[in-house]
Amino acid sequence: MDTLTIAGQQFQSRLMLGTGKYRDFEVMKEALEASGTEIVTVSIRRVEVGAAGHVGILDALDLSRYQLLPNTAGCKTAEEAVRVARLARALTGTSWVKLEVIPDAAFLMPDPIGTYEAAKVLCEEGFVVLPYMPADAVLAKRLQEVGCATVMPLGSPIGSGQGIQNRASIEVILKSVTAPVVVDAGLGVPSEAAQALEMGASSVLVNTAIAEARDPVRMAAAFRDAVKAGREAHLAGRMPVRENASPSSPVQGVVRLMNPEVPV
Amino acid sequence: MDTLTIAGQQFQSRLMLGTGKYRDFEVMKEALEASGTEIVTVSIRRVEVGAAGHVGILDALDLSRYQLLPNTAGCKTAEEAVRVARLARALTGTSWVKLEVIPDAAFLMPDPIGTYEAAKVLCEEGFVVLPYMPADAVLAKRLQEVGCATVMPLGSPIGSGQGIQNRASIEVILKSVTAPVVVDAGLGVPSEAAQALEMGASSVLVNTAIAEARDPVRMAAAFRDAVKAGREAHLAGRMPVRENASPSSPVQGVVRLMNPEVPV
Amino acid sequence: MDTLTIAGQQFQSRLMLGTGKYRDFEVMKEALEASGTEIVTVSIRRVEVGAAGHVGILDALDLSRYQLLPNTAGCKTAEEAVRVARLARALTGTSWVKLEVIPDAAFLMPDPIGTYEAAKVLCEEGFVVLPYMPADAVLAKRLQEVGCATVMPLGSPIGSGQGIQNRASIEVILKSVTAPVVVDAGLGVPSEAAQALEMGASSVLVNTAIAEARDPVRMAAAFRDAVKAGREAHLAGRMPVRENASPSSPVQGVVRLMNPEVPV
Amino acid sequence: MDTLTIAGQQFQSRLMLGTGKYRDFEVMKEALEASGTEIVTVSIRRVEVGAAGHVGILDALDLSRYQLLPNTAGCKTAEEAVRVARLARALTGTSWVKLEVIPDAAFLMPDPIGTYEAAKVLCEEGFVVLPYMPADAVLAKRLQEVGCATVMPLGSPIGSGQGIQNRASIEVILKSVTAPVVVDAGLGVPSEAAQALEMGASSVLVNTAIAEARDPVRMAAAFRDAVKAGREAHLAGRMPVRENASPSSPVQGVVRLMNPEVPV
Repeated sequence: MDTLTIAGQQFQSRLMLGTGKYRDFEVMKEALEASGTEIVTVSIRRVEVGAAGHVGILDALDLSRYQLLPNTAGCKTAEEAVRVARLARALTGTSWVKLEVIPDAAFLMPDPIGTYEAAKVLCEEGFVVLPYMPADAVLAKRLQEVGCATVMPLGSPIGSGQGIQNRASIEVILKSVTAPVVVDAGLGVPSEAAQALEMGASSVLVNTAIAEARDPVRMAAAFRDAVKAGREAHLAGRMPVRENASPSSPVQGVVRLMNPEVPV
Repeated sequence: MDTLTIAGQQFQSRLMLGTGKYRDFEVMKEALEASGTEIVTVSIRRVEVGAAGHVGILDALDLSRYQLLPNTAGCKTAEEAVRVARLARALTGTSWVKLEVIPDAAFLMPDPIGTYEAAKVLCEEGFVVLPYMPADAVLAKRLQEVGCATVMPLGSPIGSGQGIQNRASIEVILKSVTAPVVVDAGLGVPSEAAQALEMGASSVLVNTAIAEARDPVRMAAAFRDAVKAGREAHLAGRMPVRENASPSSPVQGVVRLMNPEVPV
Repeated sequence: MDTLTIAGQQFQSRLMLGTGKYRDFEVMKEALEASGTEIVTVSIRRVEVGAAGHVGILDALDLSRYQLLPNTAGCKTAEEAVRVARLARALTGTSWVKLEVIPDAAFLMPDPIGTYEAAKVLCEEGFVVLPYMPADAVLAKRLQEVGCATVMPLGSPIGSGQGIQNRASIEVILKSVTAPVVVDAGLGVPSEAAQALEMGASSVLVNTAIAEARDPVRMAAAFRDAVKAGREAHLAGRMPVRENASPSSPVQGVVRLMNPEVPV
Repeated sequence: MDTLTIAGQQFQSRLMLGTGKYRDFEVMKEALEASGTEIVTVSIRRVEVGAAGHVGILDALDLSRYQLLPNTAGCKTAEEAVRVARLARALTGTSWVKLEVIPDAAFLMPDPIGTYEAAKVLCEEGFVVLPYMPADAVLAKRLQEVGCATVMPLGSPIGSGQGIQNRASIEVILKSVTAPVVVDAGLGVPSEAAQALEMGASSVLVNTAIAEARDPVRMAAAFRDAVKAGREAHLAGRMPVRENASPSSPVQGVVRLMNPEVPV
């Protein structure tokens, strides 16, 4: 049975979901259900400050079904992220944390230095750290070395829906680390999730693409199927890419129709 | 219920399969089964000349389950294709035909002129014509006008596995015709099939990507799921693509952690 | 000396220019000058009907310096295009014609069937025919066979500035014909013109990218340099594309710094 | 006059060149000459250890014409890079250094953490630091903040010739820093250099694409022209990219040819 293992825990689903931007909790819960996800991320900072859409979210989630993955969204420095991670553990009881250190609200790009520093501290404190990061192979290797449970390179800017814009960089990450690679941020449609899995990524994390779809629940189911398809395709072993055409049937067998008896 | 309608006939599956290049008929049959396909194409010319891998293929297919789609692979001119189509109807009893007019064995690119001429003749003779064609919007419209049941633009050269290399051209086709658009040729992995459906294609035809996978049956199932995912995503309505990042949660709710009482 | 030969005539420049969309004739003339172009296309239909921006254009061009290339823009059928080409010859004295058969004003895509039919007629009547066409290798070969002087596949839709969206198809054209391949339509910036030449195209035709630049004259000069660069690069023979990194210097020569005497 | 300013020094050329991989010094010198470059990078480590192709290289360069840019290629850690930079200053008299910290010889990807640490030390010691780096906007901003003179994101892996594979990431860098952005590594043909300049990069650094061309001197001249074209295009202001076609001449002026007098 093909399963995803993170920090010794096994999952059937390779699709992680965010909880932001949903119209209401009902739609969110149905989308989570339809997606088949087993790992759900929640912004603890926003829970803590009572931000719109985050009040009551922990109650709205059936935590017997999902591995909760608190995240440090909104943290601009390593120090803030470490504090928020500790707060998350205190509030939720889980030591899993999706580490986000994002200094700049305009482009929402992760800080490699701050992420690395916070990851070192949190790993030492026994957290299960899943760091959001730029698509940078050396950073991925370093984060693995300090004990991160996964690496989570971005496909393109958060919430942009541009898909995988840095495929070449992610391919080098896939060759550089043994930890599960989770493509996080930027995916806009299910085919892009399938593409990540086909390349060899272990999982993807999706939020906006589902929450902002016209029909989020239907889209969640589509992502579920696409992630399964991508993973199965990876295991099935793809055909080679060829520069030129190759006929679907042996050309040598093709001769001119000669027989005047054939009723054509 | 979302169904694909071609020439008045309804299908649940949007994945058409070819029958070339399989190791043997057993693997082929299992792959067809796993794919959920309902439309299967067979090279009549190769059946007729007894080419390797084509002897007995019509017997190997359970034609009570599949709409047979004889194709004119190997025909270099409109005249040849018309003759082979008539032969196919005589041999198989179906008037469906996948029209291929391919003058050059090196690149296997379809001839727009010959395809158009043969399509006119065959449509007038009552065939259900599904023409393989370059990704050319005006040609697509013309083929629709002479009565073709679908149009089948290529994603990239046959058997190349390059995926959809002419996305912009296929998008114009999708805006130019009302007939079902079937992306045919070039798909290498399931994500590329999903992408075609997400764009609005009605169906895809796959052969080499399944037959040449390390595990063809597993790959067939992956294509089945990806096609379903792509279609559902199309119906669910994708998020917009944005040039810049957009936070997953409202930024205005993010304030500094102030409360010294919070146990961090 | 590397020259472009079309219909027995030799050119130093590989950049053809259109004359539409300029603010006024002065800017147009300066842009033509800055571009170094030797072949200039003008819409004869619009000249004939006295359309805005086309009155007096033939007088505005110094025809002793440029090979005039009348085009059949605005023609929706082969018949119209043939009539307009004859009119152009009568009005201008040149038998060169850029053949455009474009049935649909929404997407401005060329009609392969109408283009082919008109090309046959015009070649028989002794015109030097440069047909605008979809990026279709078999059509290119057929147009060459009926006597066209070049083939002019589109890079992307006219005036879109999307660049070369169908690179794979143009590469097959380049392998399929011996006539000069001129990438026409869709180029938005000089790098895209250089790319066409690097791939092996003999020339490019540019209009909107120069006429709609903030500074058309400066942009014209940039295209001149880029076309030259692309051609020279093609002749210089590019490095291979590699899947992985390759150090700029031999790795075997890299040893640890050992000498404690070195003043570091 | 448009000039590139780095650390208060002005340059006419926006093309930096490497010195590795050339057949011999003669070809290298001719290529440098043909390229018009004013900034030339040399691996000091390889000079120091007497690696093949690096013995005598400093003598082979006319340093009255070029700003020498010693680089720390071959250094795997910040400490090594700092030592080699100091050595370079001692050997050459220049305080300019292209900082490379590359732990892994397989993929030759730069280490963001080590690069940042070394940059801090070297900037404090008064070096003019041009750091090679992953295409990471936050890192770029941090390197600018510690005093780097430029940032040098990679387009794709060193020596791969894949061109600009992470365009979206480089665009965010261009919006995030005011320091000159030099696209370094991965460029394979001049069009890719032009593209970098068109996007707004201030300069590019090229080595393998010239040294491994069939005719390096001719390719060097092509890069010179392409870089100029790209820069001029950037200053000239490109046309917008449009989703759909846009006619080169006003459509409203196009009426049917009605006049039976017209001699067509």
